[in-house]
Amino acid sequence: MEQAEIGLIGLGTMGSNLALNIAEKGHRIAVFNRTTSRTDAFKANAGELSDRIVPCHSLQELAAAIRPPRPVIIMVLAGTPVDEQIAQLREVLSANDIIIDAGNANFRDTIRRFKELESTGLTFIGMGVSGGEEGARHGPSIMVGGTEESYNRVEKVLTAISAKYKGEACSAWLGTDGAGHFVKTIHNGIEYADMQMIAEIYGVLRDGLGLNPKEIAPVFDTWNTGRLNSYLIEITAKVLNADDPKTGKPVVEIILDRAGQKGTGKWSVIEAQQLGIPATAIEAAVAARVLSSLKTEREAAEKAYGDLGLGRISGDKDALLADLELALFAGKVAAYAQGFAVMSGASQQFGWDLPMPTIAKIWRAGCIIRSQFLDTIAEAFSAEDNVANLLMTPAFIAMMKEAHPALRRVVARAAEAGLPVPALSSALAYFDAYRQGRGTSNLIQAQRDFFGAHGFERIDAEGAFHGPWGSNG
Amino acid sequence: MEQAEIGLIGLGTMGSNLALNIAEKGHRIAVFNRTTSRTDAFKANAGELSDRIVPCHSLQELAAAIRPPRPVIIMVLAGTPVDEQIAQLREVLSANDIIIDAGNANFRDTIRRFKELESTGLTFIGMGVSGGEEGARHGPSIMVGGTEESYNRVEKVLTAISAKYKGEACSAWLGTDGAGHFVKTIHNGIEYADMQMIAEIYGVLRDGLGLNPKEIAPVFDTWNTGRLNSYLIEITAKVLNADDPKTGKPVVEIILDRAGQKGTGKWSVIEAQQLGIPATAIEAAVAARVLSSLKTEREAAEKAYGDLGLGRISGDKDALLADLELALFAGKVAAYAQGFAVMSGASQQFGWDLPMPTIAKIWRAGCIIRSQFLDTIAEAFSAEDNVANLLMTPAFIAMMKEAHPALRRVVARAAEAGLPVPALSSALAYFDAYRQGRGTSNLIQAQRDFFGAHGFERIDAEGAFHGPWGSNG
Repeated sequence: MEQAEIGLIGLGTMGSNLALNIAEKGHRIAVFNRTTSRTDAFKANAGELSDRIVPCHSLQELAAAIRPPRPVIIMVLAGTPVDEQIAQLREVLSANDIIIDAGNANFRDTIRRFKELESTGLTFIGMGVSGGEEGARHGPSIMVGGTEESYNRVEKVLTAISAKYKGEACSAWLGTDGAGHFVKTIHNGIEYADMQMIAEIYGVLRDGLGLNPKEIAPVFDTWNTGRLNSYLIEITAKVLNADDPKTGKPVVEIILDRAGQKGTGKWSVIEAQQLGIPATAIEAAVAARVLSSLKTEREAAEKAYGDLGLGRISGDKDALLADLELALFAGKVAAYAQGFAVMSGASQQFGWDLPMPTIAKIWRAGCIIRSQFLDTIAEAFSAEDNVANLLMTPAFIAMMKEAHPALRRVVARAAEAGLPVPALSSALAYFDAYRQGRGTSNLIQAQRDFFGAHGFERIDAEGAFHGPWGSNG
Repeated sequence: MEQAEIGLIGLGTMGSNLALNIAEKGHRIAVFNRTTSRTDAFKANAGELSDRIVPCHSLQELAAAIRPPRPVIIMVLAGTPVDEQIAQLREVLSANDIIIDAGNANFRDTIRRFKELESTGLTFIGMGVSGGEEGARHGPSIMVGGTEESYNRVEKVLTAISAKYKGEACSAWLGTDGAGHFVKTIHNGIEYADMQMIAEIYGVLRDGLGLNPKEIAPVFDTWNTGRLNSYLIEITAKVLNADDPKTGKPVVEIILDRAGQKGTGKWSVIEAQQLGIPATAIEAAVAARVLSSLKTEREAAEKAYGDLGLGRISGDKDALLADLELALFAGKVAAYAQGFAVMSGASQQFGWDLPMPTIAKIWRAGCIIRSQFLDTIAEAFSAEDNVANLLMTPAFIAMMKEAHPALRRVVARAAEAGLPVPALSSALAYFDAYRQGRGTSNLIQAQRDFFGAHGFERIDAEGAFHGPWGSNG
């Protein structure tokens, strides 16, 4: 029997879809799942693709079914299960085989696993896969970390299964060890911010203008034809248009406002903090999800504070809609600028030399934040070397000059109306602090020197100085 | 010769001042510094206190000089030096002696050290000390973590050296192992937010109203007699009034706006993230310090964006000043609410049973954030059990009802004028999201279910559900 080109362990939703995608692209794939019946069912239900699927009931069988040197994708729960799977695989694989972790691993685990396998003759790839179920099945965005040689050996199949943006594959090698999983983490952090900003604008439309879902949906549909064109805007319109079969009401109205999270948002924020790079829009988004989970507490607070006479926004509706579109765009620019700045910091810290234009390019299709916008980002990063910040590229300077007044007006109106816009207001504050040549931390330095003798720098001389606080300080 | 009651290792600024404070309160203290000459100089310069100071040139001498069971304070650089010092002390100390780390340790290190010493017969205390040089010398706020028994044995001296608020000592046992250092970390996080909000208001006064430091100082002086009365407001007025001897200009004008940080702000944010408790005002403050350090980048950005026609705030000056005072107060309430919420989460997570009223009480004097305000917080936490959030106490509900409109107006005016108010705007967004019974994360849950089949809860039924997305989802 012809041997398989690649193996895959873990036939959950993501693993199954990825395996079908690989088979569909003409690659013979050996699959294994801990529950044998699932492996058999998977082949049985694979239809015309089942000829290319080799079901294996043990890891020994799996190893025997793949042509050496073997690439084996593992798609199991992040954490200990990955380590256990690697330990078991080490017993059946041989030199030059590649273990590919395609789950949502913490990149620090990936770095550790990469090191642990270095001495074994096996190679490790940490691979971020974005695009949900649909992406896995029909073309995800693929972010690869590992040695460049190991990527070259699997490039053909990864390119084949990845999403395409105008014919360009959304798969790339980004750097050694944890680079792929790190970039995936930041992708998810940006996704948090993007979704939160959309939710804030939805809140202004719902509570500030009093529109119902069926009135809000066309607004997003229209925006999807302009500068905000993106998957998330597209599906926002779709979910707002959908009705609940049980009650006949718009489905968003019967969904509880308690959002879950899976950890990558939190990881983004913690790593940004560790690197000392501001990621306030992502932080605001993570905090908003946490607050959303405190449903009972929020209901009690609403009752305790009573009617504060807030909520509605008056004025010309068309002008406000135009402002909301531009505001969302400006907020998005700041959030993406933060995400890319965090990646830039990590690239230096971990020695990855992350290719920013490539990252923007492989996010243009397949992943959840896919958009035209990312093509513009890719161009901005390609146009010059050593971009300090996305906000400093000529294209984005021009766009922000046009869009920032709308963001100001929306943040101001929302503040006055009592509508929470944590991510949008943090994005505005970031933009304003970033473009402020002389900030206000001279006062903070004065205070710190006063009470703690921390010293300060002067504007007119080099060195560290203390203030004339006398016996007060 | 009479033996000392206590020992202290590390005669840097903080250690020296703490030792003098202890001696002044009538306690005989043995001191050791790695550099012998510093030890001798310390005694020589101690004036009338020198009789109570026993200089030691080795750890053996130090141990011999203290009456067993010995309490020994170590005040060395946080990190590895603490572990090295403990290892050396273990060789000269005996059962029941107490090692007290009074530095700015990460509480996770403190928990580890506490465990490591448990089997040795020695006891470990992690002690947060706030108040800078002056506090260490004349009365700091002291936050103790360790066994209650070990605290009882050093309570007398710690009470004696601590700050007093209307006669009450600002020293307390807060919980086991890392409790004291954790509370000190959050104290510092709140301090970051408090200072940042003051700096933001200063920015509005300087750049929005065009006032000079000598015009701004009296504003803070006046505020210090009202609801904002606090050490930080007091010293803000002082530093704004101080002149640079070299140039004759106000000293804040010659200080470079590039702020430093020592890590506790970052730790606060990371721990808040780990616990899943929003601390957005602290995050905004840490981010602002980071942005301040990017001086060159900010100057380039200011040039690149040019004149955006922003900056000035018009309107009645007295009304604006009244708004700024109330806005700063409201922002402060939200920031402190976040800090206490983080401590509440940690208390559960680490099994400390942190006494919130006591924490507020020992912060009323001695420490950097000392204020009348903390007395009000102490009362609010004392008045009822199981306070969900400071924002939910009757006293603070009343205060926020009065103050929130001013915070709205200030955030709105600053947003329109291009003046960055990241901490104030995050505080407002926190307040508004917290008191919103129905938020907007129903939309986020719809999106997540659409692209990732994450499922959602319904408002009208128990369980997890999926939306009617059909083949789109």
